[in-house]
Amino acid sequence: MKLTIIGVGLIGGSIALKLREKHFVDYIYGVDYSEQHLREAKELEIIDEASPLENAVKNSDLIIVAIPVDSAKKNLESVLALINDQQTVMDVGSTKSGIVQAANLHKNRNRFVAFHPMWGTENSGPKSAISDSFTGRAGVICDKEDSAPDALKMVEQVAEHLEMNLLYMDAESHDVHTAYISHISHITSYALANTVLEKEREEDTIFQLASSGFSSTVRLAKSHPEMWVPIFRQNKENVLDVLNEHITQLRKFKSALEKDNYEYLEELIRNANKIRGILK
Amino acid sequence: MKLTIIGVGLIGGSIALKLREKHFVDYIYGVDYSEQHLREAKELEIIDEASPLENAVKNSDLIIVAIPVDSAKKNLESVLALINDQQTVMDVGSTKSGIVQAANLHKNRNRFVAFHPMWGTENSGPKSAISDSFTGRAGVICDKEDSAPDALKMVEQVAEHLEMNLLYMDAESHDVHTAYISHISHITSYALANTVLEKEREEDTIFQLASSGFSSTVRLAKSHPEMWVPIFRQNKENVLDVLNEHITQLRKFKSALEKDNYEYLEELIRNANKIRGILK
Repeated sequence: MKLTIIGVGLIGGSIALKLREKHFVDYIYGVDYSEQHLREAKELEIIDEASPLENAVKNSDLIIVAIPVDSAKKNLESVLALINDQQTVMDVGSTKSGIVQAANLHKNRNRFVAFHPMWGTENSGPKSAISDSFTGRAGVICDKEDSAPDALKMVEQVAEHLEMNLLYMDAESHDVHTAYISHISHITSYALANTVLEKEREEDTIFQLASSGFSSTVRLAKSHPEMWVPIFRQNKENVLDVLNEHITQLRKFKSALEKDNYEYLEELIRNANKIRGILK
Repeated sequence: MKLTIIGVGLIGGSIALKLREKHFVDYIYGVDYSEQHLREAKELEIIDEASPLENAVKNSDLIIVAIPVDSAKKNLESVLALINDQQTVMDVGSTKSGIVQAANLHKNRNRFVAFHPMWGTENSGPKSAISDSFTGRAGVICDKEDSAPDALKMVEQVAEHLEMNLLYMDAESHDVHTAYISHISHITSYALANTVLEKEREEDTIFQLASSGFSSTVRLAKSHPEMWVPIFRQNKENVLDVLNEHITQLRKFKSALEKDNYEYLEELIRNANKIRGILK
């Protein structure tokens, strides 16, 4: 089977590595605006051939759109216009309502499957790709009833070869849940980094004192704006809703401290500890 | 050499394991109000003997106070009252001004060394103890000029056997820096957990969708109030100062989104990305 990866970065690269390793695909075209990424992807045997979009898409059974969500939305139309009813297109974006709306306008809508593999790191580019990244993670297929059965089955097989736990939901629910579970984590982490950078002018001290706790909460703050600005933009309403709630929760800690109300502070912490039972 | 560990939990237990492994100590007394923790510590060979405070302290060359910072402050006086000028007392608390103030009132002040090993996990109790925990982490000695040279040297040797990178600063600076680097991370993590628990009523969905990013930012929210309420209480002013700044930083993200000002959003993220260069 032949595969096109549009965007040979962290996610696209990791998927390509795994699908080749599992012999699910035997030839991979790479499409990317970055010549350097294409070169690196070839060297790392992520792709067999760097190719212009049209040639790659026309020759592939499966096309995976793995670029930032704003570009993916724009790009999808050209890809759907190039394919026939034997081919399948999927995306891997962190927001789903936007791309599904774009797909819904197209006559080839049913060849598209909206997919979100719930994995990522703060790194980017083909050099960051890791073949086993997805094992045991959640993979979400959205609005499955709008995809042709054979296209859906193709993406289910991809998820299976990536060793992901499949979930199904509608695109709008997906965007609500990921605002809580993923997008807000990135904002708090960015804001935490900015707080420390603002208050702690002695960079050496940050570096020397940084504990594992700090590194772990601030890790996501290394994530690039090219990926995250479009996500926040597409999921603006949900993200704002959760962000407002988060500021409210922080104000409770502030109020407990200001009023020396340590019983309340303890109650807030005990409530947060419940996450232990949920996350294992 | 004989050692007393007051508080055979995560930190006290981990130190005991490592110092025994390195043959720095050959007999360890455990003091704890929890009979169960003492039993577990004995089974795990963290301690040789569970003992009442007075017996343990009188028979030890080194006494390590490894209990929550409010109890440590109270406890220190009784310990210092029991020792002679050949013995050394150190603590391992996450705040330093409070305990140093308590020590300063005592005639045996110079037998005490204020120490903070910058490591911890969200777990507690002797079963969580890990001997190699401290390797490569920062270990901070505060107000070293107030400790006798031989007591200071003893604690420097402890840090060396724990394989920590030693830093020296005054207690007040320590508490300012740790508010930025460690304490605020815990508050944001608690508040994030409370946000998700408030907004996301479907616990199954949290569990199924939780990405590695979410787990990593929310990990600290599992930390117990017994340890953290006293830390926030003792470091109240610094923590409030950083918390206010953090809320200000979050409001900038809110404002950028509300106003669809994506250039500003990108600028905020690019600034946060600078943490990459500092943290490696």
